Amino acid sequence: MTSISELRTPALLVDSAALEHNLRTMAQALPGRRLRPHVKATKCTALARRQAELGHRGFTCATIREMEGLAAAGLGDDLLLANEVVDARRLGVLDARVTVAVDSEATLEAAAAGGVREVLIDVNVGLPRCGCAPGDAGRIADLARRRGLGVRGVMGYEGHAVGIADRAERARLTEESMRKLLSAHAQTGGEVISAGGTGTYDLNTWATEIQAGSYSLLDTAYAKLDLPFRPALSVLATVISVSRDYCVADCGLKALGMDHGNPTIEGAKIWFCSDEHVTFAPAKPLRVGDRIRVWPAHVDPTVAYHERLHLVSGDAVQETWDVDLRGW
Amino acid sequence: MTSISELRTPALLVDSAALEHNLRTMAQALPGRRLRPHVKATKCTALARRQAELGHRGFTCATIREMEGLAAAGLGDDLLLANEVVDARRLGVLDARVTVAVDSEATLEAAAAGGVREVLIDVNVGLPRCGCAPGDAGRIADLARRRGLGVRGVMGYEGHAVGIADRAERARLTEESMRKLLSAHAQTGGEVISAGGTGTYDLNTWATEIQAGSYSLLDTAYAKLDLPFRPALSVLATVISVSRDYCVADCGLKALGMDHGNPTIEGAKIWFCSDEHVTFAPAKPLRVGDRIRVWPAHVDPTVAYHERLHLVSGDAVQETWDVDLRGW
Repeated sequence: MTSISELRTPALLVDSAALEHNLRTMAQALPGRRLRPHVKATKCTALARRQAELGHRGFTCATIREMEGLAAAGLGDDLLLANEVVDARRLGVLDARVTVAVDSEATLEAAAAGGVREVLIDVNVGLPRCGCAPGDAGRIADLARRRGLGVRGVMGYEGHAVGIADRAERARLTEESMRKLLSAHAQTGGEVISAGGTGTYDLNTWATEIQAGSYSLLDTAYAKLDLPFRPALSVLATVISVSRDYCVADCGLKALGMDHGNPTIEGAKIWFCSDEHVTFAPAKPLRVGDRIRVWPAHVDPTVAYHERLHLVSGDAVQETWDVDLRGW
Repeated sequence: MTSISELRTPALLVDSAALEHNLRTMAQALPGRRLRPHVKATKCTALARRQAELGHRGFTCATIREMEGLAAAGLGDDLLLANEVVDARRLGVLDARVTVAVDSEATLEAAAAGGVREVLIDVNVGLPRCGCAPGDAGRIADLARRRGLGVRGVMGYEGHAVGIADRAERARLTEESMRKLLSAHAQTGGEVISAGGTGTYDLNTWATEIQAGSYSLLDTAYAKLDLPFRPALSVLATVISVSRDYCVADCGLKALGMDHGNPTIEGAKIWFCSDEHVTFAPAKPLRVGDRIRVWPAHVDPTVAYHERLHLVSGDAVQETWDVDLRGW
């Protein structure tokens, strides 16, 4: 078995015990189709296959590439592209059950023209992003049905609620968001009410399915909430330079999603990140060649920089999985 | 010829006239070996080949992968890895002239053990990152020579100066930094004094070669300085959703380096970026399906997310180049 000391750095590590804990905890809370795992955080077919083995046979995607990859891997029982597209031709040819989010006449036209047969009406429930006004959902559903599309129901992501630290406030905002989604659903009909994320997976009792994805690896932002999931993703780095007040390791901007700010190194004070370096004041003296773990602030854009991730138990690499759903 | 309207989005666009202007302006200011283009910003062998055609036959790299790619492409006349490594075995086997930065006994040992034959002594000239203290350079050079390594000289990057808006202050800090580098060089000897970046390419008159890389594509940060280079890199995105106060396009965190903050859209106010979206208030009304240009705040980590870049002139795609030097 390979040791992590043999890995080139920077290298994405996934603690396999933490991953397994997270996957099983979620599968128990939201069994089978109650969870539609979002693959955007992990972009990894092998991880999706593990989720399918635990009973989740439907998946949520953010990009056409993710849809294509899951379909090609035989995980196409029920794929939702939870995002609008204006050219759906690559979706129409997939060997999979494909549903796409639409929030306008233009996007439902694109779905139909591209050969997609089923849609969800995407509803703005408070996050200023995609989604029609709740009161417009019925009209769009009617247009879609007239265009020959099957309307499976609605989706609406309470992204403005999922990260709120105060649980009561998070619950309140989730309920407020889902009232909007239910009012839209009353107009559209359909079996599916798709919503939620890792931060609201147990608070959102209105949705028929939850789109959580980050729960499997977690990150330092979500780890601050009162969730039963454990941070599983770190970047293994090598100390390459040691000065009096600080050290430098080979894990920089291009190995980390930086939109949530600097990463964390246990006990250390991060000074700054450069393209291929992190400069930090360590908790205890380090030497050139020492290996350290760097914890990214945001998992999703971190994973998207890496070609593969290594499942590890202590210092042993158990498996290596391709991050095969990157790009567009 | 392909039109940009046929490209999948998000797509990296390089304005070929701006690129050509930037490459030629720099080649005139720093002809031939006076410039050692840094490939970390562009990670593109085809672009490096264009720089070689203009007379720059030596290159600067930040990763071993970049070194391997340039060597394999026949651009290995004189490759500098301007970064420390603790395992140099992949460098020792390259079919290229390889020089690596060392700043400690451990890193020069690694270079020698890995089969590398030439080094530069990396000196800390004020940026708290890699590099030995100037007064320690002679000792490290002696150790390197005793270990059988050729010491070609010194390098020291004035990264704390390159982005300063006030030109006089930038010049002052560059001179201060280069005094340190010259004092180190007096101890080490060797023909090479390698330093500089896009922001100091014409101010740093002490270095024998300048390591600028960002000049070819520029970014919104460097564009604020008094430089003769033009922003050449944008991300083509598609408007996928239009609401009353804002629009959403398909260019998010995973298509943009975010460490310098939000991107720019001409005339628009950026609200926020999500994984695959940018929400913004446009200057004039947009429709679903419209294509827009998003200008990243930081080129380097933006390019590293993309598989390819498209050279465009107006709406015509002239060439498509692989971003083939990504990863580690």
